[in-house]
Amino acid sequence: MKHISSRDNPAYKRVLRLAGGKRETQAENSHADHHVVLEGVHLCQAWLQHIGSPELALFDAQRLEHSAELGALARALDAGLCLSCEPRLMKGLSQVEHGQGVCFVVAIPTPPLPASIDHNCLWLDRVQDPGNAGTLLRTAAAAGIKHAYLSPGCASAWSGKVLRSAQGAHFVMAIHEHVDLLSAHGRLAVPLVATALEDAAALYETKLPPACAWLLGNEGQGVDPALLALADERVFIPQAEDVESLNVAVAAGICLFEQRRQQHAS
Amino acid sequence: MKHISSRDNPAYKRVLRLAGGKRETQAENSHADHHVVLEGVHLCQAWLQHIGSPELALFDAQRLEHSAELGALARALDAGLCLSCEPRLMKGLSQVEHGQGVCFVVAIPTPPLPASIDHNCLWLDRVQDPGNAGTLLRTAAAAGIKHAYLSPGCASAWSGKVLRSAQGAHFVMAIHEHVDLLSAHGRLAVPLVATALEDAAALYETKLPPACAWLLGNEGQGVDPALLALADERVFIPQAEDVESLNVAVAAGICLFEQRRQQHAS
Repeated sequence: MKHISSRDNPAYKRVLRLAGGKRETQAENSHADHHVVLEGVHLCQAWLQHIGSPELALFDAQRLEHSAELGALARALDAGLCLSCEPRLMKGLSQVEHGQGVCFVVAIPTPPLPASIDHNCLWLDRVQDPGNAGTLLRTAAAAGIKHAYLSPGCASAWSGKVLRSAQGAHFVMAIHEHVDLLSAHGRLAVPLVATALEDAAALYETKLPPACAWLLGNEGQGVDPALLALADERVFIPQAEDVESLNVAVAAGICLFEQRRQQHAS
Repeated sequence: MKHISSRDNPAYKRVLRLAGGKRETQAENSHADHHVVLEGVHLCQAWLQHIGSPELALFDAQRLEHSAELGALARALDAGLCLSCEPRLMKGLSQVEHGQGVCFVVAIPTPPLPASIDHNCLWLDRVQDPGNAGTLLRTAAAAGIKHAYLSPGCASAWSGKVLRSAQGAHFVMAIHEHVDLLSAHGRLAVPLVATALEDAAALYETKLPPACAWLLGNEGQGVDPALLALADERVFIPQAEDVESLNVAVAAGICLFEQRRQQHAS
């Protein structure tokens, strides 16, 4: 395994540049070279399991010697893709306080927008908080959803914080970013179901379609009224009086698993 | 309204000391004087609505002049409790990037441990992440739960991050911290229901009790086995295969609202 001991190493410099992109909000020029750094044992294992080989794998030289987990990961990869790295350089790459000694460089999957959106899916309208966006993806994956459509103004799906919150959901779903949801509505072959606080039916009194596009909106402002006007169903989650509404990811979990419950019951 | 222009002002120094307590994990000596700083318009409004007057309210002098929201808040309070404060001093108190120009100093409610725990409630075993702890409280409040019991090792319920995530849930619930859940089990007059991945029944095939103690565990390790052994019911949320389990707050949301659904259906 090649060893990196200088921060002038061109491979290291590239990874550092990629890892330094702390863009948590989508921008046109983000991820300009369409690669991203996955950090930590769990994310790297999940990538390997669901997608395959990374383009490059960096290991903390010192930890690699002592960790069975890192050793197993390295052995699972083509040796030519693996680089060992001085601990201080590895630390420089990390976005978290205690790194885990491994990073993968991978190409960001960019699935084409389907001509017909005929599957159960998540539509996120300006969900800004990276923790919420990641938890939404994790929740959707657990509910068996395979597609997410994110409007401009959503947290950048491949930022470190979203990746960490999503716990590998990215690798079992097709994530479509920068989607103009108003235009994409023309491709929709399943009902559009929005969570809304007004003019909405109680979730549990609604016969939920087996497949639909679940439209969830910005944490403060909710769904864009123009989009909401296109919804085929508007549902609300009946909750206790005189308290704040639910967090968007929790609300999504309740809706998606109620849909699963109804499916399995019928 | 009295005005503070120096950081040597004794009232300011006290608030600064309280606000600086960035203890996100419970410690025996945390909040030693049992007061906490609530930051932001929403939390302060919620305190006023649900609990009443703060001990002290600090306003950003400059913002107070221009904000109708802050003005209304100040007028709702006894003038003797209100202090205006130089913007730079106010900024020094803030735990967030863009403060909202108001802080309340309040006494932390310390409800006594009930002799009999006979209500629907949340039992949190070492839920470490402040965002998760706060979202759990917010979710429980939305589900109509009025009591939460937190073990040692949980995030400190009255830390800034938990308060922000909980969105005022603290003020409609009795939050019991540092509770030895194993001992508290002796006070339990309702079933203990745990979420677990093994030896558990599917949530939707379980007739959930109208009131129970919902036991939720640490993000990585789950519920302490000694506690889990005391559970009357163990339930799991049926999810898609080959993906990560749900975030603890999302899992709680699904369970608590399934309980509400069953209650309303019966």
